[in-house]
Amino acid sequence: MGRLARDVAIIGVGQTKFGEHWDLSFRELGIQAGANAILDAGIDSGKIEGLYIGNMSAGLFMDQEHIASMIAEEVGLTKTNIPATRVEAADASGALALRQAVFDVASGSSDIVVVGGAEKMLDVVSDVASEYMNATGDNTWEGLFGATIPGLYAMMARMHMNRFGTTREQLALVSVKNHKNGSMNPLAHFQNQITVQNVLRAPPVAEPLGQLDCAPVSDGAAALVLCDLRTARDLCPDPIRISGTGQGSDTLSLSNRSDLTTLGASRQAAKAAYEMAGIGPGDIDVAEVHDSFTIGEIIAIEDLGFFPKGKGGLAVEDGSTAMGGQIPINTSGGLKARGHPLGATGIAQINELVLQLRGKAGERQIKGATRGLAHSVGGTGGTALVHILEVV
Amino acid sequence: MGRLARDVAIIGVGQTKFGEHWDLSFRELGIQAGANAILDAGIDSGKIEGLYIGNMSAGLFMDQEHIASMIAEEVGLTKTNIPATRVEAADASGALALRQAVFDVASGSSDIVVVGGAEKMLDVVSDVASEYMNATGDNTWEGLFGATIPGLYAMMARMHMNRFGTTREQLALVSVKNHKNGSMNPLAHFQNQITVQNVLRAPPVAEPLGQLDCAPVSDGAAALVLCDLRTARDLCPDPIRISGTGQGSDTLSLSNRSDLTTLGASRQAAKAAYEMAGIGPGDIDVAEVHDSFTIGEIIAIEDLGFFPKGKGGLAVEDGSTAMGGQIPINTSGGLKARGHPLGATGIAQINELVLQLRGKAGERQIKGATRGLAHSVGGTGGTALVHILEVV
Repeated sequence: MGRLARDVAIIGVGQTKFGEHWDLSFRELGIQAGANAILDAGIDSGKIEGLYIGNMSAGLFMDQEHIASMIAEEVGLTKTNIPATRVEAADASGALALRQAVFDVASGSSDIVVVGGAEKMLDVVSDVASEYMNATGDNTWEGLFGATIPGLYAMMARMHMNRFGTTREQLALVSVKNHKNGSMNPLAHFQNQITVQNVLRAPPVAEPLGQLDCAPVSDGAAALVLCDLRTARDLCPDPIRISGTGQGSDTLSLSNRSDLTTLGASRQAAKAAYEMAGIGPGDIDVAEVHDSFTIGEIIAIEDLGFFPKGKGGLAVEDGSTAMGGQIPINTSGGLKARGHPLGATGIAQINELVLQLRGKAGERQIKGATRGLAHSVGGTGGTALVHILEVV
Repeated sequence: MGRLARDVAIIGVGQTKFGEHWDLSFRELGIQAGANAILDAGIDSGKIEGLYIGNMSAGLFMDQEHIASMIAEEVGLTKTNIPATRVEAADASGALALRQAVFDVASGSSDIVVVGGAEKMLDVVSDVASEYMNATGDNTWEGLFGATIPGLYAMMARMHMNRFGTTREQLALVSVKNHKNGSMNPLAHFQNQITVQNVLRAPPVAEPLGQLDCAPVSDGAAALVLCDLRTARDLCPDPIRISGTGQGSDTLSLSNRSDLTTLGASRQAAKAAYEMAGIGPGDIDVAEVHDSFTIGEIIAIEDLGFFPKGKGGLAVEDGSTAMGGQIPINTSGGLKARGHPLGATGIAQINELVLQLRGKAGERQIKGATRGLAHSVGGTGGTALVHILEVV
């Protein structure tokens, strides 16, 4: 277990706007993101040797499994019968697709592959969508007894507040920061700024979490083009190297965990990714983390080693995670403001980092960023992935 | 694109009985198969660095996604937070899990990983199961218009009969052979032998295919332990090398294919696997192919290059695919008799080949077998995978 046999880089990124796409199908969203990524890479699509798709919910939301084949067909890749692979780890599906594609290229099996994530969630009514979301946690021992995903995150929040003195306002500030960042991202689901008062007065979902502590249900897709680093140097002026990939798992149900204020899967994923990259949390310039709920971001920035355990709330409050702070978190707007089309989220995080490391993030550019970290969580932490990206 | 950076081998295999498991849950089936494989490998479970799960239907059949985490928890692997990954490609999910695990080990990321496939299908009534199976084909353009999976395979059969003179009896003989083989496999769903007359007189499902042309709906799980070849030589007296892996995709719906008598995904997967292994179809001693319907086996043995296109039916009729024939096909009983718990099928195929190559297949042993091939198809051919195994 250790270093990859070949270095792997990203040479193209693409994303649809995240949000409500009443006029676009799942297939159309996937095509748009994929075409954007291939155009950005500037490669002939005939050079693509494989397709990886992260998707959680096509079975439940659309009665359709086997969607890698469907997307390959829609984008014209079945003409040459190239492999198309779907992976699923709840809302970490996109990040998992990236990791599997990295292994494919690192193993020597493929040189160039496309990785995409897509989700079409708004075609079912919201009650049904919420029920389906329970399938990302332990439906047998939690969902069927009424413990929804927001309810489970609310338990984590209560425990964090109780043990570390994290405040309701600190939770709210995560959302306020991410909406501010999202207001500078034209592809974000929400571009409106909000205040702490807005968050505190929003309808409760599962107390202490209210509506503005929760990432929205979104439609959207994102894609990227992956390439072995040697080939990438010939094809691309600014390849971004994936210097670390880490993955961890944990119990699907919270009831079997010893501590609700930390995600073991995140810690394991971070450890493995830092080790592979040969760096530590202090070397990261910008990070996208999994804020499906505001408490998620606070726990994440602790588990990733950016701040000591219990100090995440304070870090948000004192501006350490804002643009220009010690470690800017979720410059894209995060899941809260950029939107959260489950399978697309992990890829969109990577795409934001690629823009940052290319120096092409516009208004939200972090000056001189050379290393970025992306952190993605499935459900309530049954799976977590961390990727580290570096300027070559 | 080419050879893998590290050689990969199988050091342990395990399987539950396939069939009707009214008294065992999905979780329990997964544990049984995994424990058997780890016992067979004779390794300490603390050495396992990752888990790969092939599963198609947990979302639809059990309202549960994110099942890699669930299985990791049940088998105790979340104690160390090791990565657990689910892949899905309809009924090729197990084979796809193997391929992704091969990439993981070949890339240098992991040394030892467990690969499992599991499916619990009998807890829903059969009408519902049939509907869910439509999700393996193009539900939007086929399933919702009444074209079931058996109906689509029936169209392939009609076309094959029309173009090549394949007979109804030749189709039936596939099932007869596979039941005969299955009668020697204690873990098979069916152990009864049948006659051509039984097949011809069985109730029609989608003509020309009748009930005994169709693989059953089964519960079951299968698992194997994968290891880099260098480590495997230290751990195991008879590691089996995976010398080739190939995958192909095709349109999800049949309507967009130019030819119904061949699967482009199978041809592509076979080409890639043969190239990686540096051998051809004539070098294979024993093969497990995807006979979800009898016509599937006939098309497969042609697409894999064992027999010329159009001659598959004759090959079955003249005994070329029986035990002792030119190339014994589905010594385990195949999907038809061994049973077809979707995600478990691709792993069970590999496990049969491992037993054959170890010389431990009992009554159904093919003498002196040193190279085996496994072929797995998702749905009606949207995905196909081929793996080649060799005695080290």
